[in-house]
Amino acid sequence: MFPLPSLACLACCASLGAGRDVKTFVNPAVPIDVPIPGNYTGDLRPQVHYSPPQGFMNDPNGMFVDANGTWHLYYQYNPTAVVAGNQHWGHATSQDLYHWINQPIALFPPEERVYVFSGSCVVDVNNTSGFFPNQTNGVVAIFTLARYFENGSAGPQTQAIAYSHDGGFSFQYFKGNPVIDSTSTQFRDPKVIWFEDHWAMVIAYAQEFTVGVFTSPDLKSWSHASNFSYHGLLGAQYECPNLVKMPVRDRVGGDVVDEAFVMALSVQPGAPLGGSTTQYFPGSFNGTHFSPWDSATRLTDFAKDNYAAQYFFGVTEGSNAINLGWASNWQYTQAVPTGTEGWRSAMTLPRANYLTKATRIGWIMVNEIVDPSPVLEDVPLQLSSWEIGSNSSLTPPSPLLIDYSMVDSNALYIDVNVTSINASAITGSSTLNLTFSSPASGESLRSGFYFGGDTPFFVDRGGTRAFDNILFTDKFSVADVWNTTAGTWRFQAVIDRSIYEVFIDSGIHAGTITFFSTQPLTVLSINTTALPKGTEVFVAVWPLKSAWKPFENEQGIVAGNTSALHRKGKRYMEYDPQF
Amino acid sequence: MFPLPSLACLACCASLGAGRDVKTFVNPAVPIDVPIPGNYTGDLRPQVHYSPPQGFMNDPNGMFVDANGTWHLYYQYNPTAVVAGNQHWGHATSQDLYHWINQPIALFPPEERVYVFSGSCVVDVNNTSGFFPNQTNGVVAIFTLARYFENGSAGPQTQAIAYSHDGGFSFQYFKGNPVIDSTSTQFRDPKVIWFEDHWAMVIAYAQEFTVGVFTSPDLKSWSHASNFSYHGLLGAQYECPNLVKMPVRDRVGGDVVDEAFVMALSVQPGAPLGGSTTQYFPGSFNGTHFSPWDSATRLTDFAKDNYAAQYFFGVTEGSNAINLGWASNWQYTQAVPTGTEGWRSAMTLPRANYLTKATRIGWIMVNEIVDPSPVLEDVPLQLSSWEIGSNSSLTPPSPLLIDYSMVDSNALYIDVNVTSINASAITGSSTLNLTFSSPASGESLRSGFYFGGDTPFFVDRGGTRAFDNILFTDKFSVADVWNTTAGTWRFQAVIDRSIYEVFIDSGIHAGTITFFSTQPLTVLSINTTALPKGTEVFVAVWPLKSAWKPFENEQGIVAGNTSALHRKGKRYMEYDPQF
Repeated sequence: MFPLPSLACLACCASLGAGRDVKTFVNPAVPIDVPIPGNYTGDLRPQVHYSPPQGFMNDPNGMFVDANGTWHLYYQYNPTAVVAGNQHWGHATSQDLYHWINQPIALFPPEERVYVFSGSCVVDVNNTSGFFPNQTNGVVAIFTLARYFENGSAGPQTQAIAYSHDGGFSFQYFKGNPVIDSTSTQFRDPKVIWFEDHWAMVIAYAQEFTVGVFTSPDLKSWSHASNFSYHGLLGAQYECPNLVKMPVRDRVGGDVVDEAFVMALSVQPGAPLGGSTTQYFPGSFNGTHFSPWDSATRLTDFAKDNYAAQYFFGVTEGSNAINLGWASNWQYTQAVPTGTEGWRSAMTLPRANYLTKATRIGWIMVNEIVDPSPVLEDVPLQLSSWEIGSNSSLTPPSPLLIDYSMVDSNALYIDVNVTSINASAITGSSTLNLTFSSPASGESLRSGFYFGGDTPFFVDRGGTRAFDNILFTDKFSVADVWNTTAGTWRFQAVIDRSIYEVFIDSGIHAGTITFFSTQPLTVLSINTTALPKGTEVFVAVWPLKSAWKPFENEQGIVAGNTSALHRKGKRYMEYDPQF
Repeated sequence: MFPLPSLACLACCASLGAGRDVKTFVNPAVPIDVPIPGNYTGDLRPQVHYSPPQGFMNDPNGMFVDANGTWHLYYQYNPTAVVAGNQHWGHATSQDLYHWINQPIALFPPEERVYVFSGSCVVDVNNTSGFFPNQTNGVVAIFTLARYFENGSAGPQTQAIAYSHDGGFSFQYFKGNPVIDSTSTQFRDPKVIWFEDHWAMVIAYAQEFTVGVFTSPDLKSWSHASNFSYHGLLGAQYECPNLVKMPVRDRVGGDVVDEAFVMALSVQPGAPLGGSTTQYFPGSFNGTHFSPWDSATRLTDFAKDNYAAQYFFGVTEGSNAINLGWASNWQYTQAVPTGTEGWRSAMTLPRANYLTKATRIGWIMVNEIVDPSPVLEDVPLQLSSWEIGSNSSLTPPSPLLIDYSMVDSNALYIDVNVTSINASAITGSSTLNLTFSSPASGESLRSGFYFGGDTPFFVDRGGTRAFDNILFTDKFSVADVWNTTAGTWRFQAVIDRSIYEVFIDSGIHAGTITFFSTQPLTVLSINTTALPKGTEVFVAVWPLKSAWKPFENEQGIVAGNTSALHRKGKRYMEYDPQF
């Protein structure tokens, strides 16, 4: 979750603050219960993705949804710099997974040179832990404490817990920590679920390429149950395992036909595309052992900017799983130009997950974009449909040019449905192309799909020029074996200033691509080539509302990090900028 | 092995030619026993890699080494165009794996609209087949015949054999074909080995993500023995399986401690980097079943241009395995600019393989470059060594600039040894960089290694400009967990006009990168940054001799495809240009 700590000079601070246990250690530079002002107006700042108000963010942590339907996102957070280090748990909440309130920092280091690495949260409804005698909404965080020695070398990584009586806003460290002791420097990222009658944890023995499964009746006492070792791509280490139950759906009918488990496992460094990636394994879990259905290796994302995704605890039984990933890559995350805006890294959009059998390929975990309605403007920017005529080109016009320079957010949702495709008339030249460009600078972000040949969907970010890095790969592609019998194909995407997220073939494949242009991209060009006569194309392009603007004060600043925020409770939903 | 056949208009031809069974079907445009002139002087034509005299080449096929030490390479070959289609088996032979003689086309289609797809050869020393009553050097080719219907749609892929009484130069189709019948359009690429007392074949059920294992006493009668299914990356189909025995070597001592099997399996399309890739699984084979040691997925190459590698049959028991791959990718192979020179695709350099435990990562198949001595010039271009001084930069000079514009082949072998590395003083800025450039055009090919941080070795071909394609990825990297305790690291590479092949950490990782520059790259710059004081750097750069020039006639043309060639026998080794 965090490769190379930069150990800032820290000093003990005795001052107290809400959201912070009296026994924690606070770097004086870390703000406590005072706003961390977030300027969300920068050209590169995403408007419908979560990003921290200031500082550096990496892995999503502790994600759960509470009984009131509030989604809690915690994250690896350096509040004092725009590079990794000095790890805290930042915190944000949302009612809809698109609008996020920046909450106070939730977890501080317990002592000097001990950092709060990745982990998870559960709601201990039945008070198994004994921390919550009089409540059903007690929250327990389970996470790694990573110790460093004075010379900067890594010490043990042990597993600790903290509990919250106020629904996840402030935490107390458990006195009996660590709950899993260790002498290893490479043992981290516990993710806990409830299985029938006990808690089950997956955790990475990072450099042994092993996921350990532990069980507990009470979140305090843990027993090692099994290991899942040397599966899939190894890279140089395993990180951030997840074990998550999700529906198995009939792809055609959408019906739930069963439930199954997915083991998601991140690899960093050493991904095939370089740096960080995440793979997954569908299978069965009996409470102590995970058994993958096969030995195949499947990737959650075909591009390079989706790492360490976590799946929310507490999602309604039988509904889709929901995940967010970290939309970056350790190869270049600490060098990207958003640092000049005072922040680095965003999360991916929320994604809904289920298992299905993809056309011919077999088991696949679908990544659907969670309904973006909360951030759609009332009126679409473009609704067009046409039928391909005998000239096999887009009619009218070719290409379809959509100027979105007047969209304040500079963010769009795009939904393209292609239907009535006569697959027998498809050739290697049959394409749908979407290119975003800046008339001011000539920069572009290209993408498209070849319906024939090896059927690649491609993205090329090489036409944007605000960032140059030897490891910042420009081109990505994935082969989508679409359903030629049905003759339909759907593409959805969000472009959001410096993130392009694509959902191909209704989520059979997904890609997360950060990009950095010197000027905002403001023109979307859509064209098709050599599609069979009779093919129908439906294009809907929606302007997106900034999910941050409602929280701005009169100076255009989004406050965060104050306990006043969560005390206001339901008022957040009124998007009240006065807190 | 061949995604989309372009079915040229074919006509039956009754003329006869050596190397061709009377029952075969010959497109009149395919030359028979007349030279296919090869011009190997083009700016993009590799000088120490195999490429066909004209036309389009893809997968290596039928590779074996005979009792005289002659290496036989066959390959998927379209002799009449520079795109895939019209598949024959081209043929070349070598005594040293660097100098290749273009032999007559070895296998022609048996009938109209039936093509000779990929497969393998064995030497039937004991005449198990009965084809060779009076000889011990009989060769049997086992391959896929792919039938197409008149409307161009794919018909069945069945397995056939052909036998050669002249050591692999000319073949007769077996009258009892197919030896494995099928109605599937996706059943291909048989690779046969001898196991103790029987023949064993691996073959791809391409779209079922399954490798079938078949056994035979005589190469004619085959029994299905087992399946190896849904392992590793699936992409959209499996192709070109190999099962090969190789030594397990102690990495430090180099000693053989055991032997084991490797299942190599190619995927196309749908590789993580796009298009084509090859993965492998170390394990055990009992004659009927392959059992991988674990469920990990390992890649043979970290870049994008090494597909469908095959391992030579007949290598001396106990010695390293030897493989060649196809140095291209179906995503762009039919568009690269070598077509203007009348040829497309080269093979990789020969690579020697063994299994070892890599530092911390565990089992890995090493890819060592086969000793390039046969193509080294007598005198090195540059031999330099220096110790890093207190200024932590390369001394002298920084950077080291090597002008190789006078090297006729425009090809180099590079061997860099870095020793006495004090790993505790390594930082994220400690690098070794090698950049090739053209002073004429400003183009460049960059590569280098970060000894610290996430330790990526990187290559960037984006600075060359003779080819632009939406799927031609520019940047590649691999994380090399080098042995910091030993404090040594070795890098070897060959740059050969349009192919750059790198062997990292003595072959722990290998990368094959095609590149296309408008002007020849003629300057190599080597520099280091922030290496610890006391680190010693040894650089050897050798000019390479063209492996084709010795075969050129007075007009600079390399002849091929005539039976006179192999009749001349040993004279080839004299590099006699008069045949």
